[in-house]
Amino acid sequence: MPAYAIGVDLGGTNLRIAAVDEHGTLLHKVTLGTEVAKGRDFVVGEMTAAIRQMLDTLKVPGELKGIGIGVPGIIDKATGFMYESPNLPDWANYPVHSDIERRLGTPVVLENDANSAALGEKWLGAGRDVETMVMLTLGTGVGGGIVMDGKIWQGMNGMAGELGHITVDPVGQLCGCGNKGCLEQYASATAITRMANEAIQAGGADSLKNLRDAHPEDFNSKIIYQAAVQGDRAAQEVFNKVGRALGTAIADMVNAFNPHMFVIGGGASNAWDAFSPAIFAEVQKRSFVYRATAPKEGGALANPRKTIITRAQLGGDAGLFGAARLPLQRS
Amino acid sequence: MPAYAIGVDLGGTNLRIAAVDEHGTLLHKVTLGTEVAKGRDFVVGEMTAAIRQMLDTLKVPGELKGIGIGVPGIIDKATGFMYESPNLPDWANYPVHSDIERRLGTPVVLENDANSAALGEKWLGAGRDVETMVMLTLGTGVGGGIVMDGKIWQGMNGMAGELGHITVDPVGQLCGCGNKGCLEQYASATAITRMANEAIQAGGADSLKNLRDAHPEDFNSKIIYQAAVQGDRAAQEVFNKVGRALGTAIADMVNAFNPHMFVIGGGASNAWDAFSPAIFAEVQKRSFVYRATAPKEGGALANPRKTIITRAQLGGDAGLFGAARLPLQRS
Repeated sequence: MPAYAIGVDLGGTNLRIAAVDEHGTLLHKVTLGTEVAKGRDFVVGEMTAAIRQMLDTLKVPGELKGIGIGVPGIIDKATGFMYESPNLPDWANYPVHSDIERRLGTPVVLENDANSAALGEKWLGAGRDVETMVMLTLGTGVGGGIVMDGKIWQGMNGMAGELGHITVDPVGQLCGCGNKGCLEQYASATAITRMANEAIQAGGADSLKNLRDAHPEDFNSKIIYQAAVQGDRAAQEVFNKVGRALGTAIADMVNAFNPHMFVIGGGASNAWDAFSPAIFAEVQKRSFVYRATAPKEGGALANPRKTIITRAQLGGDAGLFGAARLPLQRS
Repeated sequence: MPAYAIGVDLGGTNLRIAAVDEHGTLLHKVTLGTEVAKGRDFVVGEMTAAIRQMLDTLKVPGELKGIGIGVPGIIDKATGFMYESPNLPDWANYPVHSDIERRLGTPVVLENDANSAALGEKWLGAGRDVETMVMLTLGTGVGGGIVMDGKIWQGMNGMAGELGHITVDPVGQLCGCGNKGCLEQYASATAITRMANEAIQAGGADSLKNLRDAHPEDFNSKIIYQAAVQGDRAAQEVFNKVGRALGTAIADMVNAFNPHMFVIGGGASNAWDAFSPAIFAEVQKRSFVYRATAPKEGGALANPRKTIITRAQLGGDAGLFGAARLPLQRS
């Protein structure tokens, strides 16, 4: 009987729970709304009730290794306290880990959602054949996760992987973190909309302006991507900026880590066709390690292996599978 | 009897060899000139002869674990070939590793000199109490080395740690690597002299100009540092630029890796007093992980530990000790 684990992806709008066995087979999955407004105790109550029900219904014969929970926020790994979570404000300074462990009577591993997604893609997605990969998740913000030798790189106190806050323009857009020119200010869904609005403001983006006038409520990264695909130059230039910013940050990381692979996921990664050419051009230009490691005629390396830069494969399930992987990996 | 190893630091001008035991005790050290112009075979011959002589003279009773060699260049770890070395041009495409192993009949480990220095500082210098540190070596260029869990982080093909080529200004100074705005273009000894010349050129740096007129042959980072210490504002601004560039790159790495410590070494790090205030100010401004992990009143972290940014302690011997550590660590 293969062992199994429960993965939980606690988002700002959805709470998703899955039972996954140690081979990565999905046994069951449920999605609940996250009624964050009802407060932390309510959400934790819903989560534990749903997990209990799933365990009762499934009656999996294998051993339950524990529960992994991916949360949108920074976690102090030493205590299991959440340090900060914009989407779950009343979860700060709360011992998430020990409270849920006590309620369910089984080990609980807490992880940042972007790290969970990286681990999911490593285990069952784009990164399953490499040992070292870096994932960038393009959503409302830009999340990051570094997987080294198959495990999440935690750093000194579990705060490694904040790749959305790499500086790509030292005199650029002010970021919520206090820095200027963070990657997140150029490569998130939020940034795509902002840059399109800036293009309209600057003039010369009439078709984008018409699009915004026609869709005042949903002028977002998705609709701007559709405009780019249909040949709108101003929209294409927005995605070129996305790609150049990602390329600058990825070039830094290739030079620093020399990892096997970069995986780009998250909702805004659906615009891959629009922004990826600029990533490749920028990394080629900016990283001599990227160029040096590439297979080439007459190249000096006996075993050249180009750093792979690719799309995520698990879509919205990466974080869920990654969360389930956490307790399986610990045992 | 403690085991021991031979460390070799092969620089552009000096070849230094040391016997070091497994506790880090220096048993013997010699320095030879590197007559690079006489070619690779000559240098390797001198090196192997000096090592043989050292072994014969010392007659250390402990086991010789091998020879570690730090070289200024990029090494393909899979083959032991040097990929590129500006200071040792005829060493490219040469099987350094196996040739020296054959000549000396003992295991040889080859490593990039900046990585060796990082390992040396980890073993016996500034980083001896931490498991994860990043070292930046400020010399003619800027070298880097990442030590994770006590070992050099190699990456996919041993090219990790090229931290001098992190982009700190995407539209900045052209670098020899092909990128624009590399850290190396603002924080190396070469860059310090260039930025002082630029300040003179731009006007308003009369005292620096007088200094250059008085010392046309040795207008270098050392003399510019002395001017800064003596209160010259233009010279101080040059070092502020050094500090801001280092701070921008370090902030990126704090956010990405969350390491315990950054160690700044190399010849130009003697100007620490002149550039370090700007490092701290820049990292504080740019890295929320740095701020978040700092101990503070009412802070949320149960175990706050601020990332340490400090000077190297072993001076020019870091690379030599690190090279000796390589074979000791392998066994």
